[in-house]
Amino acid sequence: MKKVYLVGAGAGDVELLTLKAVNILKKADVVLYDALVNTQCLEFCKKDTITINVGKRKNNHIKKQNEINKMLVQYGKQYNIVVRLKGGTPFVFGRGMEECEALAKAGLEPIVISGVSATTSVPESFMIPLIYRKYNDSYRTITGHDVEIFEDIITTYNKRESLIIMMGIHNLKQIVKILLNKSFPTNIPVAILSKGTTKEATKLVFTLDELLNKPLEFFDDIKTLTPAMIFVGYFDATNSIN
Amino acid sequence: MKKVYLVGAGAGDVELLTLKAVNILKKADVVLYDALVNTQCLEFCKKDTITINVGKRKNNHIKKQNEINKMLVQYGKQYNIVVRLKGGTPFVFGRGMEECEALAKAGLEPIVISGVSATTSVPESFMIPLIYRKYNDSYRTITGHDVEIFEDIITTYNKRESLIIMMGIHNLKQIVKILLNKSFPTNIPVAILSKGTTKEATKLVFTLDELLNKPLEFFDDIKTLTPAMIFVGYFDATNSIN
Repeated sequence: MKKVYLVGAGAGDVELLTLKAVNILKKADVVLYDALVNTQCLEFCKKDTITINVGKRKNNHIKKQNEINKMLVQYGKQYNIVVRLKGGTPFVFGRGMEECEALAKAGLEPIVISGVSATTSVPESFMIPLIYRKYNDSYRTITGHDVEIFEDIITTYNKRESLIIMMGIHNLKQIVKILLNKSFPTNIPVAILSKGTTKEATKLVFTLDELLNKPLEFFDDIKTLTPAMIFVGYFDATNSIN
Repeated sequence: MKKVYLVGAGAGDVELLTLKAVNILKKADVVLYDALVNTQCLEFCKKDTITINVGKRKNNHIKKQNEINKMLVQYGKQYNIVVRLKGGTPFVFGRGMEECEALAKAGLEPIVISGVSATTSVPESFMIPLIYRKYNDSYRTITGHDVEIFEDIITTYNKRESLIIMMGIHNLKQIVKILLNKSFPTNIPVAILSKGTTKEATKLVFTLDELLNKPLEFFDDIKTLTPAMIFVGYFDATNSIN
C-alpha cells in the first residue's frame, strides 16, 4: 500500500526538526507545507522536490481543508514519497486525523512522524515549566479559537493545573472575562508567548486583572503578535532564571 | 556564565531526537541521562564523553533528585559542555525546573533544548489524535502517580476533552474508580499505551466498565507494561487506520 507521511516540523526553530523528519524530507518527491512551518525545513529536500504552501491562516485561507485532503490523495497516488509537513506535531490541532481519514478512504496508508509540539516547546523556550511540583501536577491544552467552546470546557479554576490556550489571541478580552467568571484568581499570571523558539520571540506577562482593565486598542494591537499562545498559571516570572 | 544543557531525548525511538539535541550531544563532555532515555542517543557522543545513568524509577531510585542536582552543579562547574538528557522534553514532568533552579542558584546558566514529548508522540504513534474536531477541542495531561492529587484535579467529565494520564499504571484500578465517580461514561475507551514509539510498543483498549470488572491479578499483570500512559477519550478504535 502506498504511504503518505504526516510529519511534524516542530515549533519554529528549524533545529527542532527530528532526525526522522529530516530523513524523510531528504527523500520526498512532494512536500505540502503549512503557513507556520519554517521554510528552512525545505532546504533538506532534493533540488527537484515539488514544494507547495497549503498554509491556512485565519480569514486568509490559501487552501481549504478539503482541498488539502484532495491534494494529499492526488499526489499520494501519483508520487512515491509525499510529505505533509505540519507545524508542531500532526495530531495536536491542525486536522491531522482528518487528513489520515481522507488518505485511508482513498486506499493510501498515512504514517505519522511526531514533531516537537509548540504546546510544550514554546513555554519551555521562555523558561516556563508545564509541570512544576511547586505549582501544578497537570496542564490543559485547549483551543481559544471559539470562545463558546472554550467557555463550555473551562468548568472551574483548579489551583494545581495550568492552562495552555492555542489560537486564542484574537479572543483575548473574552477569554479574560470567561476565566474571571470561572473563578480564576484576579492575580494569576497570563503570559502571552509570541513566535516562540524564533528570533522574534516575545513574552508579555500580565495578571488577569491587569488585562481586564486594558483599553480596547491594546487588544487590537496584540493581535499583531500572532502566532501566539496564552499560558495561564504560576511560574516564577521574576526569578533569576528568566 | 557557564551553561548546562537540559535536553529532551524524545519518547523512545532514537530518531525522535532533534537536530539541536544531536548537535549538543556531539560536543558534550558529560552526559547525565535518565532511565527512560534510549541509550542509542549516547552513540552521538564523542568517545571520551563521560556518560552517567542517573535514572530514577519507582521504588528503585538510582539517584535521588537532590543528588542529581548536586551532580549537575558539580559537573557544570568542572566541564565545558554538560548535558542533562531527559526522557521526552525537560519541562513536562521530570523535575526539569527544579534542576534549572539548582543550577541558577550555583551561578550556572540552564539552557533548555525541547524534545518530542511522550505525552503527544506516544498517542500519535498509536494513531490516537490528541485533538480531533469530531470528538474534542482540548486535552488534559495529568500525573496518575498520586491518586489523591489526581482525584482533586479531575473535577468532572467534559465530553469535549480527552485525558492523558502519565505514571498512573500502578494506580489503574483506583483511577478507574475515580473517573466513574466523576461521571465519566462507563463506555468511554481507555487505551493503555506501553513503550510507545519502540519495537515493544503495545496498545490495550478497554472501556471503563470493563476495567472495573477485571480481577485483581489483571491490575498486577498490567504493571509489567511500564512505562505506560493511559489515554481516556474517544478516538475511533475500530476504524481502518488502526
